[in-house]
Amino acid sequence: MNASLLVNGIVVTDHAHAISISDRGLTYGDGLFETALLRDGVVRFLSAHLDRLRDGCQRLGIGHPGDAALNDDIGKLVRSQRDGVLKIIVTRGLGARGYRPPANVASTRIVALYPLPVADNANELTVRWCSVRLSRNPMLAGMKHLNRLEQVLAQREWDDVSIGEGLMLDTEGELVCATAGNVFIVRKGTLLTSDLRFCGVRGVMRAQVLRAANEFGVQTLEEPLWPEDLQEASEVFVTNAVRGIRPVVALELLQWPAGPVAQRLRQALEL
Amino acid sequence: MNASLLVNGIVVTDHAHAISISDRGLTYGDGLFETALLRDGVVRFLSAHLDRLRDGCQRLGIGHPGDAALNDDIGKLVRSQRDGVLKIIVTRGLGARGYRPPANVASTRIVALYPLPVADNANELTVRWCSVRLSRNPMLAGMKHLNRLEQVLAQREWDDVSIGEGLMLDTEGELVCATAGNVFIVRKGTLLTSDLRFCGVRGVMRAQVLRAANEFGVQTLEEPLWPEDLQEASEVFVTNAVRGIRPVVALELLQWPAGPVAQRLRQALEL
Repeated sequence: MNASLLVNGIVVTDHAHAISISDRGLTYGDGLFETALLRDGVVRFLSAHLDRLRDGCQRLGIGHPGDAALNDDIGKLVRSQRDGVLKIIVTRGLGARGYRPPANVASTRIVALYPLPVADNANELTVRWCSVRLSRNPMLAGMKHLNRLEQVLAQREWDDVSIGEGLMLDTEGELVCATAGNVFIVRKGTLLTSDLRFCGVRGVMRAQVLRAANEFGVQTLEEPLWPEDLQEASEVFVTNAVRGIRPVVALELLQWPAGPVAQRLRQALEL
Repeated sequence: MNASLLVNGIVVTDHAHAISISDRGLTYGDGLFETALLRDGVVRFLSAHLDRLRDGCQRLGIGHPGDAALNDDIGKLVRSQRDGVLKIIVTRGLGARGYRPPANVASTRIVALYPLPVADNANELTVRWCSVRLSRNPMLAGMKHLNRLEQVLAQREWDDVSIGEGLMLDTEGELVCATAGNVFIVRKGTLLTSDLRFCGVRGVMRAQVLRAANEFGVQTLEEPLWPEDLQEASEVFVTNAVRGIRPVVALELLQWPAGPVAQRLRQALEL
């Protein structure tokens, strides 16, 4: 909670009184966010995060604050810290009561720096199935928007600290993602991940993994995945911009080794 | 934007600095809201609003602030005003970064009073179809939660002031609701509305309408509705706690009279 914080470029020290009651991020989840890793003074894959944010603003019709302003904010925050988690929120801005977005409203831009998460004991993840399902809506699929009740309710399902992630199906039973990451499986040498055409977040790390795998000659496929696909997998891993690439080693009765593809990708991406 | 405002029971005069950066209502839309009509010093159907809010808190596992605290807040706000729109937001409260809800967190309660909307010229509504679809998730269906991007994007679809509402289908083509209200149709003397089993908000006015119709002997059915059902309707109307019961008189080439069932319900409910 001790993040350094800028709201619309202004340093905010009173975090408890930072946001307007009329901000549409609060009233309707009308906005987007990014979570990036700051390591050794460098925000990893920053341009990919900013590209996704820009794309989301365009899809939702939210005024983009401009990369110059965002980069200025980020520069101010990372001056004092070498490592941490950078979070950017862009909401549609202030509005009167009612769903209709006001015309020509300036978006709200929030840039905050949080401490790194406490290091996990294990890099390797034991995961579970979530009973919460993801709803399908191609209009919202892929974006990291602020409507995240499904992920919140999914993470409420367990408090066993030995469980590192939960895998999520959509309402039709497709395997889409983890609660806070994308899922990859290796099957007969091919790297597969959900195509996210109906739901899920198009992760920045997911794109890096696909690119890096292609670069060293591993075939990749984005296509619908189903729970059964896990049974044929020689290797499973979860990706996320902050936590990197994490091998999945157990899911109920299924077990996998921490495999060579994940290991090679971690090296290639310097994670 | 000149609402009177209480946050956790405290009068807030600086609306621009009311909410914490860590409030999960902002970060994940992790909360619920209610919008009620204040008329002649009375909040209409207040107990129904509070019941729905309590039910939503239970379903999402959000700490309910207690009806006593809510009623206290409301009492303070309505002392000075006789008419307006009362808005209540309850979020899960403050949290660290990450979807997982903190244990035993106190919810945030926001109670605000807004001016009545500018009176519409016409009580009768001409409506349109929205191209934005509602996603299906029984786990979230019926609740007035803060994840409202679909409604926001739907209302962005038109700016023709002669259009009073937009009708929304879900991703499978069912007719679910209007962007900010429930839809009723009269067919052969029976009053029908969507059963909302997959999506949509279980409106407070919707429940009042069903109750009142039953009381004066009109048969009611909650069942799946489809666009074709509009063609067989003798009467169509939209309900909402603030705007009451509004006859729908036109949708593209379809037309209906402002019919007797809507009129009778308005009288019965003193709208």
